[in-house]
Amino acid sequence: MKISSAGNSAGPPEKGVVAGIDIGGSNLRIALADLGGNVLERWNASTKGTSSPGDVVTLIERGVEQLLQQTCCSKRSLLSVAAGAPGVTDSRAGVVLATSFLRGWKDVPLGQLLESALGVPAAVENDVRMAALGEHWKGAARGVDDFVFLAIGTGIAAGVFANGSLIRGSGWTAGEVGYMFLPHTTEEPAKPGMPGAMESVIGGDGIRRQWLDLSDHQPSAQNLTATEIFSRASSGDPLAKRVLDRSAQILAYAAYNISLVLNSALFVLGGGIGVSVLLCEATKRILEKYNEPSRPNLVISSLGADAQLIGAIRLALAATTSPSGV
Amino acid sequence: MKISSAGNSAGPPEKGVVAGIDIGGSNLRIALADLGGNVLERWNASTKGTSSPGDVVTLIERGVEQLLQQTCCSKRSLLSVAAGAPGVTDSRAGVVLATSFLRGWKDVPLGQLLESALGVPAAVENDVRMAALGEHWKGAARGVDDFVFLAIGTGIAAGVFANGSLIRGSGWTAGEVGYMFLPHTTEEPAKPGMPGAMESVIGGDGIRRQWLDLSDHQPSAQNLTATEIFSRASSGDPLAKRVLDRSAQILAYAAYNISLVLNSALFVLGGGIGVSVLLCEATKRILEKYNEPSRPNLVISSLGADAQLIGAIRLALAATTSPSGV
Repeated sequence: MKISSAGNSAGPPEKGVVAGIDIGGSNLRIALADLGGNVLERWNASTKGTSSPGDVVTLIERGVEQLLQQTCCSKRSLLSVAAGAPGVTDSRAGVVLATSFLRGWKDVPLGQLLESALGVPAAVENDVRMAALGEHWKGAARGVDDFVFLAIGTGIAAGVFANGSLIRGSGWTAGEVGYMFLPHTTEEPAKPGMPGAMESVIGGDGIRRQWLDLSDHQPSAQNLTATEIFSRASSGDPLAKRVLDRSAQILAYAAYNISLVLNSALFVLGGGIGVSVLLCEATKRILEKYNEPSRPNLVISSLGADAQLIGAIRLALAATTSPSGV
Repeated sequence: MKISSAGNSAGPPEKGVVAGIDIGGSNLRIALADLGGNVLERWNASTKGTSSPGDVVTLIERGVEQLLQQTCCSKRSLLSVAAGAPGVTDSRAGVVLATSFLRGWKDVPLGQLLESALGVPAAVENDVRMAALGEHWKGAARGVDDFVFLAIGTGIAAGVFANGSLIRGSGWTAGEVGYMFLPHTTEEPAKPGMPGAMESVIGGDGIRRQWLDLSDHQPSAQNLTATEIFSRASSGDPLAKRVLDRSAQILAYAAYNISLVLNSALFVLGGGIGVSVLLCEATKRILEKYNEPSRPNLVISSLGADAQLIGAIRLALAATTSPSGV
C-alpha cells in the first residue's frame, strides 16, 4: 500500500471530491479527484489474498480514508465513488454478476456495499467499459461518439460506444469479443472459464503459445512475454515476425468484423498487448487492403493503464447527481 | 402498377395520413396509413427501367396520388412520407450516398426531392434499418431494446438496435456484416461491388454456388433457389443437407460474433433466405453448444416482406413532427 503524490496537493478542494476505483485481478487502485476531474492523489494496494468482496471493500475504505487525510479533505467532502470491476457487471443495479478473477465473485452488490461503507453514492461498471469511458472523456476518443476500446492483455474485451453512449447489452456482456470465431481460430465453442477463440491466439498466453510452438519449445525461447516476442520481431527474428504477423492478421479480422457491425469511427487499443506500437502498425498495414468506410482506424490508448481510473472518476462525477451514472 | 385493397377503406381518416415507401432494386412499394399506423391502402410498381432518382420520385408521386384518391383523402391530408433506400443512407441529411442497385445512385438528396415533389416532410433511411424499425414497432422485436435484424437474401446486412436506438455508425454503414471474415470463408478483402466473405457463402448466390460445386454442376442440379435446396435437404438429399449444414454453421458463427459485440437479446432473421425455418432451426441446433449469455436467440421475422414498409410508416409518423425521425 502506498500513496504517490501524483497531483496538485495545494490544499483541500472547497466543493468536494470524488474517488475513482479500479479493482483488478491483482491490484486495487484509487484516485481522488476534485469536481473538475483533476486527480489530487493516488493510492494502490495488492488484492492478492484479499479476494472476498468484504475484504476488498474494507481495503477500499482504508484507501479512501488515507487519500482524504493525505489531501486534507474531511470525510464529508467525499461526494461519490465509482468502481470498475473485472467481470460481468450490472451497472444499473450496481451488482457484479460474475468475475473470473478474485476467485470468482458471483452476484456481489458492490454498489450497495460501497455505499454502506463510505456513506456516499457508488456507481459500478465493468472495467473495460470504464476504460472506454475514460478514453471518451480525456483520452484518444475524446469527442468521438462511435468508437471501440479494445483491451488486449491476458484476456480480450471491448468497451463499445455508439450514438455517444456505452453499449452494455441485454445481459451486460456486450464487448466479450475475445470469443470471436475468425479464420484460423479454433472452431470449438469455449468451455466455461476457458479463453475464447480469438483470445487463445492473441491474448497474452495465446501469443506465447504461438511462439513456443514455432520455436519448437526450445529452452532459450521460454519465458518471453508477448511484448518481448514482438520486440524480437522488430529486430529481425523471423519466427517472432511470424508470430507478430499472425497476431496482426487475427486482430485485423476482429477489428474489421466489429467495424462491420458498428461502423465505428475509431478503435482505441489498450491493455498490455494492445498498446504495442509494433502490433498496431502491423495490423494497420493489413487493414489498408480493406474497403472504406468499414476499415477501422486504429490508435493506441493515450491514457494507458490510467484509462480505467479516469473513467471511474468520470462515472463518480456523474454519480454525485445520479448513481446510475453515464 | 396496381392498387390492392389491403386495408380498411371505410372513409378518409380525419386527422391525416402518412406514406411509407420501400424502394427496392426491382420493386417500389408504397403504403398509406392513418395516424394510428394502420395501413389503409397499398400500391406497387416495377422499378425496372426506372432507375434514375428523378424517375423514381415521379413514380412515387404518382403512387401517392393514386393512393390518396383511392382512400378519398385530399392531397392536403398527407402529412409526411418516409422512404427506405437499398444502399448507404445518411438519414440525418436525407441523402442516399451510394447504392449498388438502381444502377448505382450516388449522393442523391432523396429527402429533399420527395419534399419538393410531395410538399411534406420526408424522412429517408437504409432499407434494412427500416425493416429493423418495423420489427421493433410491430414485429418480432416489439418492446426489445437490444436486437439485431439480420436480412439474408442476395446480400446480407443487419439493422442494429442498442439501448433502444438504431445504430447507424460514423459513416452510415453500420450493419454491413455480409463482409465478415469467419472460419472457412475467403480471407481476401472484397473487391468494390463484389459480395463480402460471409455473403459469398450464404447469400443467395453463395448457397447456389455451394450446391453446384457439391453436385458437380450436373444439369439436373441447375436453377434451384436457396429455398428449394433447403427443401431438398429436409427431404433427405445428402448433398443439399451438406449445403444447409454449412450455411447454418456460417450463420451461427456470424450471429455469435455479432452477439459478442452487442449482447443483443434477440436476432430477427429476415430476407428471402433468412425466413427459412429449416435454416433457422439448423442454426439454433448449432448455437445450443455455445455459452450463455452471448448465445444469440434466433427468431424469424414476423412481418416478412412487409417489415420495411411498416418501418417506413413508423418513420413517416415520427417525421410529422421531426424530419430526422426515430
